[in-house]
Amino acid sequence: MKDSDMSENDNSNGQWFHELHGYSGSAIGFRVEGRVHAETTPYQSIEIWKTTDWGHLMVIDGCVMLTTRDNFLYHEMMAHPVLFTHPRAKNVVIIGGGDCGTLREVLRHDEVESCIQVEIDERVTRLAEQYFPELCEANDDPRAQLRFDDGLKFMADAEPESLDVVIVDSTDPIGPAEGLFNEEFYRNTLRALKTGGILVQQSESPLVHSELLRDMRSKMKGSGFAALRTLCFPQPCYPSGWWSCTMARKGVELDGFRERGAQIKTFKTQYYNADIHRAAMATPEFLRQILGE
Amino acid sequence: MKDSDMSENDNSNGQWFHELHGYSGSAIGFRVEGRVHAETTPYQSIEIWKTTDWGHLMVIDGCVMLTTRDNFLYHEMMAHPVLFTHPRAKNVVIIGGGDCGTLREVLRHDEVESCIQVEIDERVTRLAEQYFPELCEANDDPRAQLRFDDGLKFMADAEPESLDVVIVDSTDPIGPAEGLFNEEFYRNTLRALKTGGILVQQSESPLVHSELLRDMRSKMKGSGFAALRTLCFPQPCYPSGWWSCTMARKGVELDGFRERGAQIKTFKTQYYNADIHRAAMATPEFLRQILGE
Repeated sequence: MKDSDMSENDNSNGQWFHELHGYSGSAIGFRVEGRVHAETTPYQSIEIWKTTDWGHLMVIDGCVMLTTRDNFLYHEMMAHPVLFTHPRAKNVVIIGGGDCGTLREVLRHDEVESCIQVEIDERVTRLAEQYFPELCEANDDPRAQLRFDDGLKFMADAEPESLDVVIVDSTDPIGPAEGLFNEEFYRNTLRALKTGGILVQQSESPLVHSELLRDMRSKMKGSGFAALRTLCFPQPCYPSGWWSCTMARKGVELDGFRERGAQIKTFKTQYYNADIHRAAMATPEFLRQILGE
Repeated sequence: MKDSDMSENDNSNGQWFHELHGYSGSAIGFRVEGRVHAETTPYQSIEIWKTTDWGHLMVIDGCVMLTTRDNFLYHEMMAHPVLFTHPRAKNVVIIGGGDCGTLREVLRHDEVESCIQVEIDERVTRLAEQYFPELCEANDDPRAQLRFDDGLKFMADAEPESLDVVIVDSTDPIGPAEGLFNEEFYRNTLRALKTGGILVQQSESPLVHSELLRDMRSKMKGSGFAALRTLCFPQPCYPSGWWSCTMARKGVELDGFRERGAQIKTFKTQYYNADIHRAAMATPEFLRQILGE
């Protein structure tokens, strides 16, 4: 990360925050007015920056987590495709998701009766309340439960056949979230889901993390999930600007979704609609080959 | 642009090239081994960098033009959707496109009998031959004509009703390519196209340039094109990592495409397939509102 930068193409003479992503050799940056908060919690370092064009920016352990301007892409795609695939999800759990943006999108669905968010680091949520208040609009919904606890332990202890949808909205599989990408976690999640229940997990960049994606899918399949589906979508603030989530279903195929439901949805979105849902299921040629589809 | 940069997330201690995009307040960067070429032509400054993970990188006037690793997304999406929309494109013109990547993709189509590439700056093509030789593989195809000339003048002088497809593969609408985004150019292109002929033009980021996109579509429509269609696709090396092209058709609607043709295509692609084509036509909710769809 750096403090000041100029180029022919920058007519602002401003300061820039850059995430230098060593794994892919690529970087994403935002012009900033300054850092408005920094702290080290028992779990990680968290920074909040004020940008010139993207609202607030949250950075955890040097990695961009979200900006005010573009988080709608990720949050909508973590919530709506899975909920318009499940016939009627009553009991939803979010692992991670401390900024509460996914929770807000989940609670737009009237069929959801309960959504438990299990975030390990309460400070993420407290900072979201302060700097991303629009994402926390649904935190007081009577259907929402905010727990600050270890998602691995939560899922290991979850009652079998009790959940319809589990959403893993975590940081990268290196660091605190590593355990959310292994077979033990997938087996525990499978057990906690009802038949027909769906796990959806953020699954990194289709381009620069394609081997990680293949490995993750292989572990999901190896843990006993019946069907998998990876969806791709743009996400400017993440490495390569292109991201994915992967659905894994218990005991039932993952072919279509409730298109009619998506078309007549009663809430507003910024990115998601039925066409976008269908579009996200298209698999690029190179990814078909890597995933062996 | 800068020479060296480090952060917690960068375990390489390498050098980084950043494009600081003043208009959107966002930046894209690549880890580089060094700059292998720099020159100023009568039209622009051109640099070639060697990156650690993205092959070669071409930069024009400080803006990233392409990398070896991700140019397939843009080049395939500039060529295949329009050619699988037109029933049988025999005569194709590319305005710009000096790196020859779009030309290569166009010539994969057997129905194309002639493809004229009109690039104003011969040095772009000569440097592509040296640093991106794979993109120039089709330059010796007998159907290809490489002209180094002003695309505006070419289109003003083009014989009426002579072309099936015109592809505008240019730099941004600020600078040398500005004239390619105005009504005079669109009227000339409309005149040069046969009925049913299609103009396709790179149309910037759906997220950060949405107003420019709306303005461009309005000028296309105002110039007499019968139907428009904007397609979105990922492009990591361009601002926001998300890009678009817009098709404009003369006298005929733009509803579908030759899906069966795309499914049984006889050439290989890395991104494009029939599902991806359909997916690219999905319009995000926010863009529907901005474009008034």
